[in-house]
Amino acid sequence: MRNLLAKTLFALLLLANAAFAADPLPSWNDGPAKQSIINFVTKVTKAGSPDFVPAPERIATFDNDGTLWSEQPMYFQLLFTVDRVKALAPQHPEWQTQEPFASLLKGDMKGVMAGGEKALLELVMATHAGMTTEEFDKTVKDWLATARHPKTGKRYTEMVYQPMLEVLTYLRANGFKTFIVSGGGIEFMRPWTEKVYGVPPEQVVGSSIKTQWETRSGKPALVRLPEINFIDDKTGKPVGINSHIGRRPISAFGNSDGDRQMLEWTQAGDGARLMVLVHHDDAKREWAYGPESKIGTFSDALMAEAKKQGWTVVSMKNDWIRIYPFE
Amino acid sequence: MRNLLAKTLFALLLLANAAFAADPLPSWNDGPAKQSIINFVTKVTKAGSPDFVPAPERIATFDNDGTLWSEQPMYFQLLFTVDRVKALAPQHPEWQTQEPFASLLKGDMKGVMAGGEKALLELVMATHAGMTTEEFDKTVKDWLATARHPKTGKRYTEMVYQPMLEVLTYLRANGFKTFIVSGGGIEFMRPWTEKVYGVPPEQVVGSSIKTQWETRSGKPALVRLPEINFIDDKTGKPVGINSHIGRRPISAFGNSDGDRQMLEWTQAGDGARLMVLVHHDDAKREWAYGPESKIGTFSDALMAEAKKQGWTVVSMKNDWIRIYPFE
Repeated sequence: MRNLLAKTLFALLLLANAAFAADPLPSWNDGPAKQSIINFVTKVTKAGSPDFVPAPERIATFDNDGTLWSEQPMYFQLLFTVDRVKALAPQHPEWQTQEPFASLLKGDMKGVMAGGEKALLELVMATHAGMTTEEFDKTVKDWLATARHPKTGKRYTEMVYQPMLEVLTYLRANGFKTFIVSGGGIEFMRPWTEKVYGVPPEQVVGSSIKTQWETRSGKPALVRLPEINFIDDKTGKPVGINSHIGRRPISAFGNSDGDRQMLEWTQAGDGARLMVLVHHDDAKREWAYGPESKIGTFSDALMAEAKKQGWTVVSMKNDWIRIYPFE
Repeated sequence: MRNLLAKTLFALLLLANAAFAADPLPSWNDGPAKQSIINFVTKVTKAGSPDFVPAPERIATFDNDGTLWSEQPMYFQLLFTVDRVKALAPQHPEWQTQEPFASLLKGDMKGVMAGGEKALLELVMATHAGMTTEEFDKTVKDWLATARHPKTGKRYTEMVYQPMLEVLTYLRANGFKTFIVSGGGIEFMRPWTEKVYGVPPEQVVGSSIKTQWETRSGKPALVRLPEINFIDDKTGKPVGINSHIGRRPISAFGNSDGDRQMLEWTQAGDGARLMVLVHHDDAKREWAYGPESKIGTFSDALMAEAKKQGWTVVSMKNDWIRIYPFE
């Protein structure tokens, strides 16, 4: 008995030691970006340190499109919308002649875009409203199970960034609560974020349409209405954070102008803070885009602010050993 | 060494055994109400049971006013509002003649109520809007630190129900996430729910006014606007649950007609469910009120539905050994 216990204890010690020594961010090249994340986590979790933050206040927020998964050639939710219009077209013969549906069904995305924001909103409402929350949840899951990305041929949920998965895990292992704060639809993300990112539905903040309580087939239902409820982008991000989390993050991760105010709001709190921007500069392994891109615009003004404020800018090309888990 | 280890293991066994045997709800009299809670928790947490629910899906929602703390002679947030009008009156000489402020400042609450919902809304906006979220947070904390209940003379945060504190703790010890879903103001509750109930800000759902991103003294701020954003009552409760939690609760606790749809929504899910209504029938130790009360109305229709659906109705008089922790 004594021998067995001693052996077990020794094995546990070895394991604990290995876990301690292991690199929490193995897909990150050693460099200032990786170091800024590790330094921050180390100082806010060290009891007695002047930068120590109690676990319940360790809130970290993550943009989704372009920060946790890819967003090219367009936001994946837009690709979902296109697929849904095609799937629903047989029930809507009027769409054959009615814009922006007619252009979309002819594969003419330029024609769709000519309709501007109004056209996009129409497409979104036609595909995201009119059903119960549970029906929409199932539609999203069914789509993700079969749809493939036009360039990589991979499932969309495979096109998440391995280095960011490691950051999420590393933060949670250090007592952080990780939240998604995205311009994307809250109910488009919730069906899969727990499985893919380890982020449960109640820790997802996003844009939304209104829902309404109804009785359907004798049972209560929440029906999705074709009416904007909240846009979780730009100044909407701090508003969404306040509404859903009720606490200022101590760390925020983004990749575009839409994340600027979230990072500013995070930085404006007291104590140690970590603001990170992912820069898409890897045309070979992912995409390279910046100030000129309509999707995920990273303006020169944002880059200047990042430098001035000491925010961490991650070069996907130089800082990341791997982009996707499947590599 | 062997002796020490054996002793330690034995002590641990004893402790584990004691913890197991201890009554998780010591302020509850033995009876069907207490038993329904324990039975439910036992079956949804028992691995292999047909009623087993994985921990991330163990969501329990609690109304606040009348379910977790008292709500008489009026909602405590209204008493806060009254105190704030008095405190702010010197800066608003016009209130001396302007209704509903004039009546309130004369102590004529009947005159205030004569103005109906519009008058109440005016009082709320005058006291809850116009400042930053951080300023409001501080105002609530300062008030709670000094204000005393007109009947008991206790701090408002002392007038929470000991048996419900035990339910919150018991559920969390069994892997549940406990959420507040209240008609009260979300930012009125968040400053104190973590300390008083163990419910962190991100697990509080409530009514809200709009907030707006501004720059104040060179720093970003969220300013509270005199405009309703969301009313988290009646059919609003399932809507608020869907918006904030994104998952249907498996258990819900309320005490009035405002909670009916939350309980119906909870019950309509698959698998084991627990719906509980606290009935205020203890005029001696708390208050006794029901269908005729304007605050916390518990209509005959609600009681009939509870009986028909098999919801647990808690008699404060008979089921609770203690009401408040200070007793």
